[in-house]
Amino acid sequence: MPPTTESLWINTRLATLSPKHNAAYGALHGHALWIKGEVIHAILPQDEALAEFAGRGDVIDVAGAWITPGLIDCHTHLVYGGNRAAEWEKRLTGVPYQQIAAEGGGIVSTVNATRDLSQADLAAQSLPRLLALMNEGVTTLEIKSGYGLRLYDELKQLRVARQFAENYPVEIAPTLLAAHAVPPEFAGRSDEYIDEVINRILPAAASEDLAEAVDMFCEGVGFSPAQTRRVFEAAHKHGLQVKGHVEQLSNLHGAALVAEFNGLSADHIEHLDEAGIAAMQAAGAVAVLLPGAFYFLRETQKPPVAALRSAGVPMAVSTDLNPGTSPFTSIRLAMNQACVLFALTPEEALTGTTRHAAQALGRAATHGQLAAGFVADFLVWNIDHPAEIVYSLGTPLLKQRVFRGR
Amino acid sequence: MPPTTESLWINTRLATLSPKHNAAYGALHGHALWIKGEVIHAILPQDEALAEFAGRGDVIDVAGAWITPGLIDCHTHLVYGGNRAAEWEKRLTGVPYQQIAAEGGGIVSTVNATRDLSQADLAAQSLPRLLALMNEGVTTLEIKSGYGLRLYDELKQLRVARQFAENYPVEIAPTLLAAHAVPPEFAGRSDEYIDEVINRILPAAASEDLAEAVDMFCEGVGFSPAQTRRVFEAAHKHGLQVKGHVEQLSNLHGAALVAEFNGLSADHIEHLDEAGIAAMQAAGAVAVLLPGAFYFLRETQKPPVAALRSAGVPMAVSTDLNPGTSPFTSIRLAMNQACVLFALTPEEALTGTTRHAAQALGRAATHGQLAAGFVADFLVWNIDHPAEIVYSLGTPLLKQRVFRGR
Ligand SMILES: [Zn+2]
Ligand SMILES: [Zn+2]
Repeated sequence: MPPTTESLWINTRLATLSPKHNAAYGALHGHALWIKGEVIHAILPQDEALAEFAGRGDVIDVAGAWITPGLIDCHTHLVYGGNRAAEWEKRLTGVPYQQIAAEGGGIVSTVNATRDLSQADLAAQSLPRLLALMNEGVTTLEIKSGYGLRLYDELKQLRVARQFAENYPVEIAPTLLAAHAVPPEFAGRSDEYIDEVINRILPAAASEDLAEAVDMFCEGVGFSPAQTRRVFEAAHKHGLQVKGHVEQLSNLHGAALVAEFNGLSADHIEHLDEAGIAAMQAAGAVAVLLPGAFYFLRETQKPPVAALRSAGVPMAVSTDLNPGTSPFTSIRLAMNQACVLFALTPEEALTGTTRHAAQALGRAATHGQLAAGFVADFLVWNIDHPAEIVYSLGTPLLKQRVFRGR
Repeated sequence: MPPTTESLWINTRLATLSPKHNAAYGALHGHALWIKGEVIHAILPQDEALAEFAGRGDVIDVAGAWITPGLIDCHTHLVYGGNRAAEWEKRLTGVPYQQIAAEGGGIVSTVNATRDLSQADLAAQSLPRLLALMNEGVTTLEIKSGYGLRLYDELKQLRVARQFAENYPVEIAPTLLAAHAVPPEFAGRSDEYIDEVINRILPAAASEDLAEAVDMFCEGVGFSPAQTRRVFEAAHKHGLQVKGHVEQLSNLHGAALVAEFNGLSADHIEHLDEAGIAAMQAAGAVAVLLPGAFYFLRETQKPPVAALRSAGVPMAVSTDLNPGTSPFTSIRLAMNQACVLFALTPEEALTGTTRHAAQALGRAATHGQLAAGFVADFLVWNIDHPAEIVYSLGTPLLKQRVFRGR
């Protein structure tokens, strides 16, 4: 075994995003970041760090640059086939939704395109999206299934996610979302499809260790709370965490259901009510805000940000990258939209893609902060103030991206 | 003189954006694009083209890729110093505007930052923005002054624009916007500042050939219609075209004033009325839509797109890239926002950054279309449908960018 590599990053401005430090962004000045192998070994006053570190490895002078934790995109549907640009164009030229659906549009078109691809081709079509997020500073992201909607193709999506994790410097949290929509073969028989999910797809994903959590689309146009409960029970039986697409278009009290199952997060939540907020607060569930879909669908009902804030429910921010409602491969865009459309502060937006996003992926103790014992995933920025990461779009701001110390 | 280089681009799908071709996007299939030097020599059926071209130069097989004209960003404030992220953060954390202004925020902070930089440093700060737009496919863009607000610094901004045009493969249309705001030295004496603009700044810019058009911020919080008229008269006296930031926050009938002076474009125009539309239509002025500022400022009054469309007023789409109200260096974002927020179709959005943007810069006869005699600025895309350029964000889609045939 080679000796553990160590490095000391000096002349930094650290936006630790750690709640231990009282300043905005958990900022620490005059400190050095000591990396040992794949982990942050220590953060120490620079003089002290230089004296202790002497000779152990490279000393990297970032000349006053800001360093943040790596960004975490905690809700994506990144692995899919095709795109829905032509369908979107039809919508904008006034073709009625009925006709678009009749012509094979909507989620079915993505399901067909995804099923039609081999694992290799699905990976090839999805890879540019992964690289774009990594290029922007994402070091951990969630990838959901949900466009296979049958055993083979749900697992195929999750295998692409695993293949990405094995081949690129990025960590991937895979989520089974078999209950994303009722597949065409089960039209009108959604309970039978839920049986299929519970009896075959979920156990297979669990036994091959292809998912660490199970997600549901709990909505009038998706699955009912009763169906959601059945799937959540099966998830727990197989040792998987739960989370939900809930309260996006209506209030079916899905967030409370997520909370009841000690779920990781309730996502979208535009229609979340006070009882749902209280349940999430009590259970420690994260509220995942997805402004991309809100923007793209021209929604008007906003998530209850002020109430979440005052209840102390942690808010994460994510791209919701998907071909139908949020075709945006940019976590900086999502942060900007969270501020502009939902009135988050830039600090809340950045916390929402670091510390709180880590919590939404069950990684609160190891990811999303610059702190001793956390993974050495961090970003060196070409900025004068952390708010710049959120404020502007289009111009690259990243100087260096470090994943697991390298 | 070396012989003119010729090339033939085959197996194309051409989105010509030319009104001569009746298909969506002016699409032409089975045709080849013949480039001679810096100009499009011909567009011919492929067999015919291959026979005629034989031996004259490179034959480039794009394997079925779509080709569009180079994108044109017809309204930018790209050259400035500093940024306003910290001020934006204050606004989002609830600091009142009065206090922000008292602390030196607002446009004054950008004016101070711009004045404080040498021409070289101003160019260095602005260059990443230019490169980001070029990287997205922009081949022609407008750059306005307006953060100098005094002779030396207005010309300094325009000199940076000229320097960019001389050193990078991009065409720049420089615009004098000395009447962007009343500079601190003239507080309370806006008529005297207009005298300064008319008597010193505008003549100097014209005599050094540093601007081809003159822009005005005609608004309650900017300059009055009477002041705008004086500046427009001076512009014509010096042989410069006019255009205006008009009807953004209120209706001062600035668009009609632009039309009266045969101006190139009326920009923003959220509050444009029927009379303004009629005046623009009669004068052939372009309506420049700037959805970035609408989005960033959370405005609710939209430009009258349906009325402009039915009046046949050409609509352009632009970034309005600037540090205060649209810090977005992405013309694809502007096109997406134009569709999502203003209900343009993707074809209208792409026409708005090609043919109509060319018209807004007085280049309708030479730019913004794939057609014989037009400049050979074009883009080869990694897409299956032109709407994809507008629909998704974050993932690079450009295969190749050609400026003046190279
Ligand atoms: Zn989703
Ligand atoms: Zn402007």
